[in-house]
Amino acid sequence: MRAETISIGTELLLGEITDTNTPFLANKLALLGIDLYYTSSVGDNYERLLEVLRRAWQRSEVVITTGGLGPTQDDITRETIAGLVGEELKVDPDLKQNIVCFFTQRGLEMPVSNVKQATVIPSAQAIPNPYGTAPGWWVEKEGRIIIAMPGPPSEMQAMWQDEVFPRLQARTGAIILSRTIKTSGLTEARVDELIAPLASSTNPTLATYAKLDGIHLRITAKAAKPEEAQEMVSKRETEVRAILGDCIWGVDDETQERVVGQLLVARGLSLAVAESFTGGFLAHTLAISPDSQSYFKGGLVTASDAAKVALGLNPRQAGAEAATAMAVLARRQFEASIGIGIEGLTGSAGDAAPNTVFIAIDSEQIKQHTVQSYSGRLYQMKRRGAYYALFDLMKLLGSG
Amino acid sequence: MRAETISIGTELLLGEITDTNTPFLANKLALLGIDLYYTSSVGDNYERLLEVLRRAWQRSEVVITTGGLGPTQDDITRETIAGLVGEELKVDPDLKQNIVCFFTQRGLEMPVSNVKQATVIPSAQAIPNPYGTAPGWWVEKEGRIIIAMPGPPSEMQAMWQDEVFPRLQARTGAIILSRTIKTSGLTEARVDELIAPLASSTNPTLATYAKLDGIHLRITAKAAKPEEAQEMVSKRETEVRAILGDCIWGVDDETQERVVGQLLVARGLSLAVAESFTGGFLAHTLAISPDSQSYFKGGLVTASDAAKVALGLNPRQAGAEAATAMAVLARRQFEASIGIGIEGLTGSAGDAAPNTVFIAIDSEQIKQHTVQSYSGRLYQMKRRGAYYALFDLMKLLGSG
Repeated sequence: MRAETISIGTELLLGEITDTNTPFLANKLALLGIDLYYTSSVGDNYERLLEVLRRAWQRSEVVITTGGLGPTQDDITRETIAGLVGEELKVDPDLKQNIVCFFTQRGLEMPVSNVKQATVIPSAQAIPNPYGTAPGWWVEKEGRIIIAMPGPPSEMQAMWQDEVFPRLQARTGAIILSRTIKTSGLTEARVDELIAPLASSTNPTLATYAKLDGIHLRITAKAAKPEEAQEMVSKRETEVRAILGDCIWGVDDETQERVVGQLLVARGLSLAVAESFTGGFLAHTLAISPDSQSYFKGGLVTASDAAKVALGLNPRQAGAEAATAMAVLARRQFEASIGIGIEGLTGSAGDAAPNTVFIAIDSEQIKQHTVQSYSGRLYQMKRRGAYYALFDLMKLLGSG
Repeated sequence: MRAETISIGTELLLGEITDTNTPFLANKLALLGIDLYYTSSVGDNYERLLEVLRRAWQRSEVVITTGGLGPTQDDITRETIAGLVGEELKVDPDLKQNIVCFFTQRGLEMPVSNVKQATVIPSAQAIPNPYGTAPGWWVEKEGRIIIAMPGPPSEMQAMWQDEVFPRLQARTGAIILSRTIKTSGLTEARVDELIAPLASSTNPTLATYAKLDGIHLRITAKAAKPEEAQEMVSKRETEVRAILGDCIWGVDDETQERVVGQLLVARGLSLAVAESFTGGFLAHTLAISPDSQSYFKGGLVTASDAAKVALGLNPRQAGAEAATAMAVLARRQFEASIGIGIEGLTGSAGDAAPNTVFIAIDSEQIKQHTVQSYSGRLYQMKRRGAYYALFDLMKLLGSG
């Protein structure tokens, strides 16, 4: 099946907003095994939208539009699709009633202009929109499908997930399943080398992605039945785990801070951090992680030598020694069972020079420090250093 | 002048990367007063790219492509443009020499495949690429222009800035100047209301943007000469300043943390912060701001009541009282001249409920606290609260 997407809205052509709907749909269509050959954006102009739609209608079996379903005069997606297929717009009483209810529930009266969101053409079925007043359209005619969805990403994504994805999946007759395996401590080149024996398979596929919290591997399998796809993914995951073992810290939407948090909670431990090189990134990551109150006590950001002196640290200490003193201080100040200290040495020649990060972990039982070297942009290295500290702690807790 | 953009690359159609080149170019073309009517993406496929290019060539005076200029077989932008205009590719000896040098300077030999990056057609002029091996192409034929630029955003943006923008500006014969004025402490609706008398002008235009550090206003003027455009922008800026006065804290690429930093340095003052609601976001923002070492001493992130007790705070204190105690503690712990404390109250019903942020500022001369209410997503509110604290401090320092 061959698809194409069209994002509609003059604001896209002025560069005022970035179109995130197109990459979202591209990714989801790829998962369904539907080929996406073209994407385009066009403004709120009847003639130009009609031209783009006509072209898409000629060359693609599925055309997915986003935007232009609002209540104002600018919003012309319905009118233009009606023009393309040569059908007449009529108000659907049920749809109109839904929109009236949407406003009534919020203690408001429906503005007259919203009636236009209740219109359909004979070939169009309305697609429910639980998060807004604009229903989508599913249009089928002459063996072609046009799917019109609203522009706001939250409405579009919910409509995709609940309505459009299941219908398209039923058409393709294929089940696509994917699973992401997350590692730390290895470079992307090293991961590629290690998994090379598995990488050439086309089903399931295995792709690597370099992220700030490590290298991610995505296994994607396509099969006729869910159980088959599940089995293919599981089998490949077992093989990947046999190769990458200890470097794997999580799957799918797990984050390092949540994995560490679960380990700490399970062992009745608490954590405090002191950072100079990473400038509070680790403390902030932990503080905003859901449910972190139960294990994360707090953080110290020591931005200057004077601050270190004020806190009782010796500013002449450097590297692992300084990181260790900071870990001890964080643990003591916040009365936590474990302290992490992060010090760093910035490469002198700007962004390109390698940077060194010293990570110390301190508890009654554990006294450890590690040294990592990174090259790349400074802000990326700060994030990498902070995540690596969590990975270090995870390894200690997992084997403890 | 009517333009259209084409992003080339199969990875775009798989949703593996987000196309930032299109919004960049959309924004820049709007500044030049060039109409952008269509944008599209297409994969690394000769027939499909040729189709999209031919369509663009028919309907637009300027066609800008990004991507597909690499050395591999997948990279087919040059071949396809040659096919479109019916001309033959030839290796240009000077271009080839440049690429050989690029490799020699890095102690490498040029791979044979890179020779293809040295090819041109008679209608094409090469555009220098200081950051990579792929020169761009400026093709003029039959009154139309095709501009081919590399896909990596850093290379594309540098080529746009140094080469493409000046040439296009010379064609349009218009000078576009813009200036962004940054405010805090007002809602977007209130700013719109206040500037309504200026908003209807079409030259200069005045647009508002809601950002986490406040409402930004962009003035854009178009004129035949730089001095004229400059005068129009300055005149409008004076009018905007007369209306928004004290709420303005910066212009263009100034950030709140840098403005605050400059004020602190000028007055010989230093700063420390203690955060519970904002979870270290303010400390991290200050820590990673360039040159912040000279005024930012450090931060405390107090994530739990137990941590507050460990630090000597009274966990039963709440609101402004708690924020004040934290400001005092931060100042004392880091021996700074000014302390900021941030406490908050999260709305109970999730994201939609309003949240309250308490900000206290403490120094020998200043004892102040303010209360702000926000609605929206929690992570946005934490950022808004942290930025508002900087705005509060800025007002105190500015008037001190």
